[in-house]
Amino acid sequence: MPRYRLDIEYDGMPYSGWQRQAGQHSVQAAIEQAVFAFCREEITLRGAGRTDAGVHATAQVAHFDLEKDWPADTVRDAINAHLQLAGERVSILIADKALPDFESRFWAVERHYLYRIVNRRAPLALERNKAWWVPRPLDDAAMHEAAQVLVGRHDFTTFRSVQCQARSPIRTLDRLDVTSNGELIEIRASARSFLHNQVRSMVGTLKRVGEGASTAADVKRALEAMDRKACGPVAPPHGLYLVRVDYPEL
Amino acid sequence: MPRYRLDIEYDGMPYSGWQRQAGQHSVQAAIEQAVFAFCREEITLRGAGRTDAGVHATAQVAHFDLEKDWPADTVRDAINAHLQLAGERVSILIADKALPDFESRFWAVERHYLYRIVNRRAPLALERNKAWWVPRPLDDAAMHEAAQVLVGRHDFTTFRSVQCQARSPIRTLDRLDVTSNGELIEIRASARSFLHNQVRSMVGTLKRVGEGASTAADVKRALEAMDRKACGPVAPPHGLYLVRVDYPEL
Repeated sequence: MPRYRLDIEYDGMPYSGWQRQAGQHSVQAAIEQAVFAFCREEITLRGAGRTDAGVHATAQVAHFDLEKDWPADTVRDAINAHLQLAGERVSILIADKALPDFESRFWAVERHYLYRIVNRRAPLALERNKAWWVPRPLDDAAMHEAAQVLVGRHDFTTFRSVQCQARSPIRTLDRLDVTSNGELIEIRASARSFLHNQVRSMVGTLKRVGEGASTAADVKRALEAMDRKACGPVAPPHGLYLVRVDYPEL
Repeated sequence: MPRYRLDIEYDGMPYSGWQRQAGQHSVQAAIEQAVFAFCREEITLRGAGRTDAGVHATAQVAHFDLEKDWPADTVRDAINAHLQLAGERVSILIADKALPDFESRFWAVERHYLYRIVNRRAPLALERNKAWWVPRPLDDAAMHEAAQVLVGRHDFTTFRSVQCQARSPIRTLDRLDVTSNGELIEIRASARSFLHNQVRSMVGTLKRVGEGASTAADVKRALEAMDRKACGPVAPPHGLYLVRVDYPEL
């Protein structure tokens, strides 16, 4: 019974999120249905990160098992053909045979997210739903400085959705960099794992710093408060991309 | 009666093209309607380039007159507000007062187009309708070499739509550069003016060179044939962007 690893790109906008939910259109279900259309096997696809509705991925990782041993390139092309036929905004970039005990979620050693802000007066036409439009000028250097307060091992209760199901609010944030290039501001966040809504909560708080409405010291106080009410407004999902998941060299 | 110049970004996909046509949804009409909604003046908006259905713009230029003298920033923000309300994929980047005899089409001294190809096996999820997906590997160096055959002053009958209404098929192509960056191939074309479908016709012909189906010598023969039938398949509209229009320093 071969196990396959998939690297997956998707536009999060038409989906209720990664995870299959009754009566909703999820990325997971779209791929499971494409696998069934291809080989008539009912699979469960397990992903490395449960992205929310509207959140994109350039390289989500997932795995599943098949009864029959198909060449990995055949699996990739067949799933893509059925995704295209169904009009899905999902594409399998790579399919590979994986070790029989590979687990996309539990084996992941680092997850990388990118958050894109377009900071300009005019609304977005070409990038609509692909970035957060912020019309007021942001100070990206101040945002970067404030972001460094959050790097390291902390209790991230302030930056965690009240619906978060993780047992512990403690996480180690390895990187939170804010850079700008013209009107585009990019925020890159890396950690072994994140709490629910953690990246969007941090970005929403940093945006307030960029506007001059708060400071790095305020962000430090918000973190130390360990109180969800100390968090700024959560940034919208459509600026967020899951861009990479790292696994140990095997 | 002040004249305004607009710099406009749009996603070409939902539109029948730039130009107003009865019963169709055009970019021109979308903006004219937004102006009317803002100030109850019926205007005619004149653009520098008549992009086809599906063709995008990062900086189309257009002009129009108003009876009342509004500040240019008010004009920009009010048009954008009404475009957003109407759900249009069009955004006014800049509005400026123009000279009373400024003509966006006739004063233009150079037009710049970008054509984007994503050259990879997997279909496009995030860039769907924003680039041409070409799954077979392309040789971008061979494409660039062949492109140089087309640069200069030529009779472009081969690369011109049969519906083209220009009086002369002679144009001077100043630049046709093919560059690549990872899976993205960018083709940049500059000229004072282009014939109808000229960029997409040239790109379609260069793609055949990239696949190894024809050579720079074939492109030269096709150009010299001055025969539409010598042109390769026309590239799809959704890879094409009008990126800049130059005017003389005034």
